[in-house]
Amino acid sequence: MNVVELIRKKREGGSLTEEEFRFLITEYVEGTVPDYQMSAFLMACYFRGMSADETLTFTKLMLHSGEVIDLSEIPGVKVDKHSTGGVGDKVSLILAPMVAACGVPVPMISGRGLGHTGGTLDKLESIPGFRTNLTVSEYKRVIRDIGVVMIGQTKEIAPADKKMYALRDVTATVECIPLIAGSIMSKKLAEGIDALVLDVKTGRGAFMQTHEQALELAKTLVGIGNGFGKETIGFITNMDQPLGVSIGNWLEVVESVECLRGAVGTHDGSSDLMEVTYVLSGAMVYLGKKANSIEDGIEKCRKTIKDGSAYRTLLNLVRAQGGNVNALENLERFPLPKFTMEVKSTEQGFVRAIDSFELGLTSISLGAGREKIDDVIDTKAGMVLKKKVGDAVDIGESLAVFYTDREHVLASARERIAKTFTVSSTLLERKSMIFDIVDNNGVRKWK
Amino acid sequence: MNVVELIRKKREGGSLTEEEFRFLITEYVEGTVPDYQMSAFLMACYFRGMSADETLTFTKLMLHSGEVIDLSEIPGVKVDKHSTGGVGDKVSLILAPMVAACGVPVPMISGRGLGHTGGTLDKLESIPGFRTNLTVSEYKRVIRDIGVVMIGQTKEIAPADKKMYALRDVTATVECIPLIAGSIMSKKLAEGIDALVLDVKTGRGAFMQTHEQALELAKTLVGIGNGFGKETIGFITNMDQPLGVSIGNWLEVVESVECLRGAVGTHDGSSDLMEVTYVLSGAMVYLGKKANSIEDGIEKCRKTIKDGSAYRTLLNLVRAQGGNVNALENLERFPLPKFTMEVKSTEQGFVRAIDSFELGLTSISLGAGREKIDDVIDTKAGMVLKKKVGDAVDIGESLAVFYTDREHVLASARERIAKTFTVSSTLLERKSMIFDIVDNNGVRKWK
Repeated sequence: MNVVELIRKKREGGSLTEEEFRFLITEYVEGTVPDYQMSAFLMACYFRGMSADETLTFTKLMLHSGEVIDLSEIPGVKVDKHSTGGVGDKVSLILAPMVAACGVPVPMISGRGLGHTGGTLDKLESIPGFRTNLTVSEYKRVIRDIGVVMIGQTKEIAPADKKMYALRDVTATVECIPLIAGSIMSKKLAEGIDALVLDVKTGRGAFMQTHEQALELAKTLVGIGNGFGKETIGFITNMDQPLGVSIGNWLEVVESVECLRGAVGTHDGSSDLMEVTYVLSGAMVYLGKKANSIEDGIEKCRKTIKDGSAYRTLLNLVRAQGGNVNALENLERFPLPKFTMEVKSTEQGFVRAIDSFELGLTSISLGAGREKIDDVIDTKAGMVLKKKVGDAVDIGESLAVFYTDREHVLASARERIAKTFTVSSTLLERKSMIFDIVDNNGVRKWK
Repeated sequence: MNVVELIRKKREGGSLTEEEFRFLITEYVEGTVPDYQMSAFLMACYFRGMSADETLTFTKLMLHSGEVIDLSEIPGVKVDKHSTGGVGDKVSLILAPMVAACGVPVPMISGRGLGHTGGTLDKLESIPGFRTNLTVSEYKRVIRDIGVVMIGQTKEIAPADKKMYALRDVTATVECIPLIAGSIMSKKLAEGIDALVLDVKTGRGAFMQTHEQALELAKTLVGIGNGFGKETIGFITNMDQPLGVSIGNWLEVVESVECLRGAVGTHDGSSDLMEVTYVLSGAMVYLGKKANSIEDGIEKCRKTIKDGSAYRTLLNLVRAQGGNVNALENLERFPLPKFTMEVKSTEQGFVRAIDSFELGLTSISLGAGREKIDDVIDTKAGMVLKKKVGDAVDIGESLAVFYTDREHVLASARERIAKTFTVSSTLLERKSMIFDIVDNNGVRKWK
């Protein structure tokens, strides 16, 4: 088979056969097909897309390029959640212990920060001692013992995706729905799950900035999940402002712990975060056969906060993966960065919008994310929002506080953060956090 | 500047600035921008194209990535010809000595065989001793002494193009008009020319298979030429069957020598070749200010055949570049390949079409071209057509004779060659060889 012919076929809008995809992906992983041919193929995919059959085949071959973990020995319906990523998205840290506390096993493989968004793995690693690089046998032991496990992609899981993802990142071929879907699902299907809940974010802080793109991705993901016989429910959720109040790795752990301790009411800065978290976790509990409906699942999850079982599960998880539980139990003892700076409002009115994309980028400049792949993250760096969309604000009132070790970014960060807030004189109606639900029956508005 | 952003900009249909192109091309030549980023960029160009301004900028930067030869010390208007390549296209071998014999200096830098088509360089090198790798000072001396010089692209000329071309070849990004035009013109403009004639072929044996594509390429090339202040005329020519009778390196030299010796009448197999050659060379003599019109140029070229001056110029050129003139003077002494085989007709009627694309590929299988970049060409291998489109043919009559050292391809080559001939019972009107002329006044039909 000739690689140039396969690239040309896709370039001309043709569909690759399973045999052709197998050749391309196998030879790519083995290094016979070089990066420069794969990147041309990926760019052709960007323009030409893939058929539903191609997307399924592509996912299957990516999945089987590596190990598929078998969790059939673990009792129960194993359910995971995947989010397309957003700014301040610490949902996994709260949701996984909640769902596990409801008796549904959660085997979770997460990623690192990407572009302007953070990654669950980086957040977990800000807990002193927490190990995300477990072996497969450790992974199985933790989920059996604790009911939840959270690790990073191992080199055994979907190596084709790992190699291809790194290439897409540097060749402007990330934003292509079949490639995104194949990448996500090949990793999720390798975890040993039985069912999956998807959080596809839309809005200024999301990768899918339009509702249409988000819906298309959700439908593609749900199609793949069902194609593999795994019951899959997707939600389109709102990422028009950061989720919750904190952006930055340790700061997001702190917010998550506070949420799990039940310290968050329905009208403070973290309430949007909890709204999303409850719906996603409720759907997981439903898919995990521990609730009769998503609504019932949500109620069961609320109980795990009230009775402390979700928080205890987090502590058990952290302990099982080598993390220092004292750090979580005594949040106030964690060292602060050298510089703490307040951003104050110069206007009066109501916060109308917060540009989470720009806040994500600003967080990176504070040290909370990577500009280059081998940058080291400053786990302490980041920001806490004091105002969210809909809040009243006065001149001189605090909009946000940020933390960094980098003296040279102080002035620019203050200016950038201030500019992300749009203040207007009228109060707009609050947008819902959950727009649509997508399953094998199609797309419906979420109440 | 960030390469990923430049790829994304092109992917989204944007136009790169001169500064952005300079960054991309300079860093690519230096190896800082890797092949995998360039190939993604090239594929984005395939889908998004380039504006006229971008194409001019791109060409300029490719040109100035290397040496631009200065021939201002050589008197006269220096004119070259470029062809987009076809099967059996030996026009350069005949045209260059003719035009030089008219007093117009012809500095010619040619390429090697590509895809299903042969290359002038490979043909020249089938003449024993002929050196195509002259230094720049040798190049200047030969054109000053003989009035014509024919060499290959040196590593000093347009190194960005050289590197990018090799990449395009293996990433299915060849067929993109701005990239093709930039590649052609950056090399031609580096030769030190004052004017240029272009032969853009269309039809089954050409790279531009449709008339529309050929016209678009011709217009782009003429636009670049004029943009650089070099008077440029393009012709759209017919490549529905091989040009002349021979395909294969030495065999094409033989046919060219016979044409230059005036052995070709107006109704034999090489007459289509001479029709194209006269129009192109006539235009060159006109641009070189040695004729008042293209028609006048054609007449002057005809004279150089009749008076033997064109043939003598070829012998002088071959001698000046180290070639063995005796080989040309005694064509019959050249050794034949091991196997000579005839292809006979199984039908009666008139030849309606000859698939030159397939004949080009078959010639490669005989040894006349390269399947891989480092294959060694068998200069003796190839074929001679005994029938051309419009010729009457009887059952058992010879369609072609082919020559090869490869015993294992004999049966398949015979079958493949036979299949390229379409024979029908009626005689169709002969198509013109020259369709259109393109200059800075636009496109016109050629009489």
